[in-house]
Amino acid sequence: MAKTKPAPRLFVEPGLGPETRLALDSSQAHYLVHVMRLKAGDGVVLFNGRDGEWSAVIETIGKNNCPVTTGKRLRPQETEPGPWLAFAPVKKSQTDFIVEKAAELGASRLCPVFTRNTNSTRINLDRMRANAVEASEQCRRLTVPAIDEPVTLERLMAGWPVDRRLLVLDETGAGQPIAKVLAGLRKGSDGIFHECGFLTGPEGGFDKAELDALRKLDFVTGVGLGPRVLRAETAAIAALSCWQALLGGDNYS
Amino acid sequence: MAKTKPAPRLFVEPGLGPETRLALDSSQAHYLVHVMRLKAGDGVVLFNGRDGEWSAVIETIGKNNCPVTTGKRLRPQETEPGPWLAFAPVKKSQTDFIVEKAAELGASRLCPVFTRNTNSTRINLDRMRANAVEASEQCRRLTVPAIDEPVTLERLMAGWPVDRRLLVLDETGAGQPIAKVLAGLRKGSDGIFHECGFLTGPEGGFDKAELDALRKLDFVTGVGLGPRVLRAETAAIAALSCWQALLGGDNYS
Repeated sequence: MAKTKPAPRLFVEPGLGPETRLALDSSQAHYLVHVMRLKAGDGVVLFNGRDGEWSAVIETIGKNNCPVTTGKRLRPQETEPGPWLAFAPVKKSQTDFIVEKAAELGASRLCPVFTRNTNSTRINLDRMRANAVEASEQCRRLTVPAIDEPVTLERLMAGWPVDRRLLVLDETGAGQPIAKVLAGLRKGSDGIFHECGFLTGPEGGFDKAELDALRKLDFVTGVGLGPRVLRAETAAIAALSCWQALLGGDNYS
Repeated sequence: MAKTKPAPRLFVEPGLGPETRLALDSSQAHYLVHVMRLKAGDGVVLFNGRDGEWSAVIETIGKNNCPVTTGKRLRPQETEPGPWLAFAPVKKSQTDFIVEKAAELGASRLCPVFTRNTNSTRINLDRMRANAVEASEQCRRLTVPAIDEPVTLERLMAGWPVDRRLLVLDETGAGQPIAKVLAGLRKGSDGIFHECGFLTGPEGGFDKAELDALRKLDFVTGVGLGPRVLRAETAAIAALSCWQALLGGDNYS
């Protein structure tokens, strides 16, 4: 029995409403026509991070375009409050991986940060953005995580909102167990979860002076992920997975 | 200031004790001599999963070998009880990724399993084993996860030990929140954590008949990882991360 493939899900920039006609960009048109082999009349699903999720139908197939017209709204827009992830970029494939998995696991903002031991100084924001969009399309998010311009650790800390607790993944073993710290964020006196962020270091770890400076900040809590030495990208994903299991998702509140 | 590199850590098969002379295999010798550029007299760290962790010194550098002699024991052997991970193999790079991250996150056994929607029918056990060894060397485990021969889902279930709870990652949304299920495994009447395993499906998800059959098994609990649709490899890693945070590691007991 042939399985019916679900309609491709695409992130678009324009506003979405009933009977809205959109010209998809050429790479999306290429994907629908040449990769998914859709035809005029076939359905797609659209979201833009603001107007919810909409069904749409391909009108015609052009050479480099395939205009679509929206039908009905499938899901209303919802806020998707998620943790921020500040991370020292690692090798290209691992950075791709961090961005993809962070989007899947619900991060709302990604902040590339340069630390003393960070080897990668070239950040491809377009590539990060494309990976975040693709993962968001695939995992049925209604938003795409924001991706910040890279900054130094000093500047990130200077601009960090003090009411968003920053859990620093401390590979020295001095951090508190992450489950305990997340549980502490669970319900404040206001009855809601406190917003948080994670910071993961580069391949060589944070510099000692960096860790000392971080520990002095009131909004920082050092956390540990157990006895093994995790690669930078593993630590980022493990932290977000714990957030999802302990604080995230509507079936957990 | 130049950072001193930690001594390379290698998994070896032979027994380890004081003043033991070992001929490393040619790929390990190549790694030490040509990649790490070590010389006679330089130190390495060895473990074999049975005799703890030992320091050792390179005696001489040969063409395709570099014999080493152990010095003192750095860490005694410890059992490393971890969850089992049964998973439907996905594309090559994602399977590599599952194996590497599972080793880092403390899985004690990996069971490749063929389900109805599994596309990959060729499993490279040597490659899986090499990835598991490399990740174990890097993350300072004292053991390497066991890697089983691939079996069908039916056979895996028939041979599954009934006292090891199997948490099936159920992408239909019918599962219980994973944090809740893991908390329930925390301390039994015997005062210790109950052993568990995870099962993740293939790219297309489990077949409905498979899920129905799994749900009828007494040792199975369906679990969910939140509202988003996770890729197969993300689900595997997220589940193991939750296990580590909630049940794993000596600083959590």
